[in-house]
Amino acid sequence: MPTLLLDRNAIKTLIRMSDVINVVEVAFRMCGEGKGKMPAKTYLSVEHGDFRAMPAALPECAGMKWVNVHPQNPSLGLPSIMAILVYNDPETGYPLAIMDATEITAYRTGAAAAIASKYLARRDSHTIGIVGAGFQAHTQILAHAELFSPISINVFDVSKAAADKLMHSLPQFSIRNCSIQEAVASDIVCTLTPSRSPVVKREWIIAGTHINALGADAPGKQELEPSILKEAIVVVDDLKQTSTSGEINVPIQKGSYTIGEVYGTLAELVVGKKKGRMDNRAITIFDSTGIAIEDIAVARLIFEKAQQIGGYPSINLIGT
Amino acid sequence: MPTLLLDRNAIKTLIRMSDVINVVEVAFRMCGEGKGKMPAKTYLSVEHGDFRAMPAALPECAGMKWVNVHPQNPSLGLPSIMAILVYNDPETGYPLAIMDATEITAYRTGAAAAIASKYLARRDSHTIGIVGAGFQAHTQILAHAELFSPISINVFDVSKAAADKLMHSLPQFSIRNCSIQEAVASDIVCTLTPSRSPVVKREWIIAGTHINALGADAPGKQELEPSILKEAIVVVDDLKQTSTSGEINVPIQKGSYTIGEVYGTLAELVVGKKKGRMDNRAITIFDSTGIAIEDIAVARLIFEKAQQIGGYPSINLIGT
Repeated sequence: MPTLLLDRNAIKTLIRMSDVINVVEVAFRMCGEGKGKMPAKTYLSVEHGDFRAMPAALPECAGMKWVNVHPQNPSLGLPSIMAILVYNDPETGYPLAIMDATEITAYRTGAAAAIASKYLARRDSHTIGIVGAGFQAHTQILAHAELFSPISINVFDVSKAAADKLMHSLPQFSIRNCSIQEAVASDIVCTLTPSRSPVVKREWIIAGTHINALGADAPGKQELEPSILKEAIVVVDDLKQTSTSGEINVPIQKGSYTIGEVYGTLAELVVGKKKGRMDNRAITIFDSTGIAIEDIAVARLIFEKAQQIGGYPSINLIGT
Repeated sequence: MPTLLLDRNAIKTLIRMSDVINVVEVAFRMCGEGKGKMPAKTYLSVEHGDFRAMPAALPECAGMKWVNVHPQNPSLGLPSIMAILVYNDPETGYPLAIMDATEITAYRTGAAAAIASKYLARRDSHTIGIVGAGFQAHTQILAHAELFSPISINVFDVSKAAADKLMHSLPQFSIRNCSIQEAVASDIVCTLTPSRSPVVKREWIIAGTHINALGADAPGKQELEPSILKEAIVVVDDLKQTSTSGEINVPIQKGSYTIGEVYGTLAELVVGKKKGRMDNRAITIFDSTGIAIEDIAVARLIFEKAQQIGGYPSINLIGT
């Protein structure tokens, strides 16, 4: 029984955003029904970065993403973040596939945000603001385009070149380069910066805006003025993880925000335990740190598609 | 930059016990000097078993072993335990190799026990008792044969067929099939059973014996009558891990043993912070649960050997 090997190019040909949104929403539903298993991320710190082990299981699938963060890599011609996923049969533990997880991570992050927007943004939302035009911006646009239509996209990046590059790489969308104030004045705002101090000011936010806060994924990171959190309805992907490394982590550390103020989790919205947007003038926030059940759900999708198509390389790694 | 793929057969041709003992002892020394990093194992439980993520870093190497335990697998023609290791460059996080870790686990477990015997057993030890003649028994014999010579081996297993199989698979050694009492009356005793109640009685143990207690690796498992622990000098591979899942876990749970009674860690012996055997009549115990730095040290050895030899398959998994 060989282990399938799926490199990044294979994943690119197998992955489709509409499918990813479907399986990620199902994964959140299963979590809301208590059918997901996800121990806390484990961090291994080394001199120039860290590694994270992210295991998870859903009914009929299990596995683990192993991902590094090495901020100095670009100066060496390597990406800062490289992710591998081992996909196992939960019945026997057999490693069914080993795959690149870089694309999977970007797609599931886009999908989770768009699903949050579906429950929290105004139904008539049609402008998407992107703050930070890096790698993750692509999949935010692809995912929101699946659930909101037509959309026009307002992009801000401190590097105009990065914003231009994003615009040119997605010619099928209506994208314009703008100031941060204009980007933030969109119906749905996705913040995607590595900031450690607020870049989005309260005074720029219009009543009724939904914000996907995606940049903060480690202790000390934050993108929004804390007064925005205090006024908003805040939904998180994982309460424990966001309280230590999401958008809410710094305000909690400083005592200006408490876990008790969080409205609920995305799983609770999907399963109907908590209601989504009820007031067109409310500010809503989805605080996303990225969780392993999202990765495993997409890995299953990719594995099953690869099996159907056939012809991918494999190795009899463990010799059984 | 491709990722090297090393299957179980490749590992078998690359691994040598004398090398493994050397690198595992160096790894324990580095840990004793505070140069090792090893977050706690993470467990992912599923219906028919569990998975464990074991990350670790030493100077110049990092990685993670992902190993399952599915006790019902043999009835399906699969091993209960299948392990994969991702070996990374700690400088950049790049996945340098993905390898089978089944052989690595068996070899490093044998090596750690033999290193413990070097510090704790009597210098003139020449009989090795094996209680439980499964897969791990081979590498216990190979490892002890590297550090003690000449040796004769006394094997007991509840299945005589298993003991006979072990004997025939290692024709180069003097091995005899015997009762548990005779096996336990050896100079060095290695217990390798999956027992959940004591199989080794205090009255069988001779003064001056060293015991490598290797079978207990999960809560509720134990092989030795607790009175043996109370009298013995107990050394562990990892204090936290052994107190929750090693030989000492059940007596600690029941209140008949305390963490404070543990003499020290193997790293402390290797680095000289604690002395090894000082009294020829003392009973000594090494409580081994298996730790990730052992795996990473051996993975580095295997990776470097494979690079030197060349010709192994690889894949451009993450597409850089």
